[in-house]
Amino acid sequence: MRILQCVPNFSEGRDPRFLDELRAVLERYPVRVLDLSLDPDHNRADCTFLGAPEPVEECAADLTARAVELIDMRRHTGSHPRMGAVDVVPFVPIRGLTMDDAVEIARRFGRGFAERHGIPVFFYEEACTSEGRRNLADVRRGEYEGMAAKLHEPEWEVDAGPQELNERSGVTAVGARMPLIAFNVNLATGDLAVAKAIATAVRHSSGGLRYVKAMGLEVAETGLVQVSMNLVDHRRTPIHRALELVRLEAARYGVAVRECELVGLVPLEALGDVAGYYLQIPGFDESKVIEYHLLPGDGEEET
Amino acid sequence: MRILQCVPNFSEGRDPRFLDELRAVLERYPVRVLDLSLDPDHNRADCTFLGAPEPVEECAADLTARAVELIDMRRHTGSHPRMGAVDVVPFVPIRGLTMDDAVEIARRFGRGFAERHGIPVFFYEEACTSEGRRNLADVRRGEYEGMAAKLHEPEWEVDAGPQELNERSGVTAVGARMPLIAFNVNLATGDLAVAKAIATAVRHSSGGLRYVKAMGLEVAETGLVQVSMNLVDHRRTPIHRALELVRLEAARYGVAVRECELVGLVPLEALGDVAGYYLQIPGFDESKVIEYHLLPGDGEEET
Repeated sequence: MRILQCVPNFSEGRDPRFLDELRAVLERYPVRVLDLSLDPDHNRADCTFLGAPEPVEECAADLTARAVELIDMRRHTGSHPRMGAVDVVPFVPIRGLTMDDAVEIARRFGRGFAERHGIPVFFYEEACTSEGRRNLADVRRGEYEGMAAKLHEPEWEVDAGPQELNERSGVTAVGARMPLIAFNVNLATGDLAVAKAIATAVRHSSGGLRYVKAMGLEVAETGLVQVSMNLVDHRRTPIHRALELVRLEAARYGVAVRECELVGLVPLEALGDVAGYYLQIPGFDESKVIEYHLLPGDGEEET
Repeated sequence: MRILQCVPNFSEGRDPRFLDELRAVLERYPVRVLDLSLDPDHNRADCTFLGAPEPVEECAADLTARAVELIDMRRHTGSHPRMGAVDVVPFVPIRGLTMDDAVEIARRFGRGFAERHGIPVFFYEEACTSEGRRNLADVRRGEYEGMAAKLHEPEWEVDAGPQELNERSGVTAVGARMPLIAFNVNLATGDLAVAKAIATAVRHSSGGLRYVKAMGLEVAETGLVQVSMNLVDHRRTPIHRALELVRLEAARYGVAVRECELVGLVPLEALGDVAGYYLQIPGFDESKVIEYHLLPGDGEEET
């Protein structure tokens, strides 16, 4: 069974009819919608849907075409960084797909999108064509207003589409990435310095685990502090390893883990890794789960 | 989404054509087959299938009817205790069903089966009508050969069907039970006394956890010992609690848990409980798992 997820973000977050338009497109495909929501402050719409790779890719093409028709970037304001009507289109391999598969899909989609609409496209994260484009923040730096000039800089030759700004639609980033797991560890202390020290110890940027981003912050409701983490590749840095490293570092301050939270959804594979680790079951995988055998396409499609 | 599992056992384990007959019936229903196998030594066939409750119940009626046609108990020999052509028919609530739902289904099925075929039926485990019939071993004691006499004992009034043996088909036990989780803990020692002492400590029958059956045994391949457990109600005695109690008791002998094994399949709900415990996530449930939202019928059927 193969499942691909797509999480396009659109620069329209205030008109509820926009969601109706997206919903009408989504309903034409055998895909499952996990999220479809507007953020008026960001003036941005989030859409998360998944299914077999072929319908997901086709649906993404139709969805983004509809957004290109409806959104005019010349009138867009909002608090979230953005550079295009279709701002970002990441593809995420959930099951039965390698990252190489997702990169291939992203690049094919990006080239088709650029050609069809005459919109400059950059590939980012795992689909990037140079390291300077891996981070979305670097690609998007300057935002919509700075893109006309950025496109004249030699290091920002587009990956697909025209080498100049589409004034109405802006610029689009198309990428491939692992599912992001947002995992927060709440500590039994109100000492922010402890949370920050632990975050520093466990995150990649300051010497910690390769696929962990982390910061220490205060949780207003409880008066306690939190190590807030993004696990960006759960296959290589699984949840349990990040948690146990936090616990190990917290022990140096005599601080316990009070509770944790997962924000959003987690792939069954990641949950299986957690169970396999703590239950000490070598080679545990999802096929041990009854419901795995009820998933659509199980055993019928190639993987 | 509602999922019911049915695990009928039939007294034919040597003729591969018998499996073909069962398979032909199973293919007519929207159910998923997890196991369909013969045991020649036991002379017994195991079948595990699941799906929505209505097709599972109908399929069970058709499957058992076919087995009644094909099997003649007067010629049956085998090393496993048995009392009927259709020996046992347990129904197991996997998701979106209470035990009461499963008991109702089991009893309705049992009455229909008894009436259709003129076979005495006893209800067992959660479907039992008196405590003396809760354990299958008590119901089946005397086996096929002893059933004619047993049916004349006043305390063995049937729950459905005739009060005398069906010589060709024997007697059938129909029950409802939680999914059984077979979980083995391999210890880093070869000392069988340690495994036996731990099994004694953790199992219900000698003072341990309410829904744990356990025994200590030697694992020939490794020379190490094992606490072999059956967890008979994972909702009330979850896997992690059984494992951690074994670990706690093993510590008294300075013995570590080397590794564990799950024999067979485990419900997603049980895996979610494990992850929720070790990751310390209050209220964690399966709806946090991406694949949960791809299961057939999710959000469309009543639960």
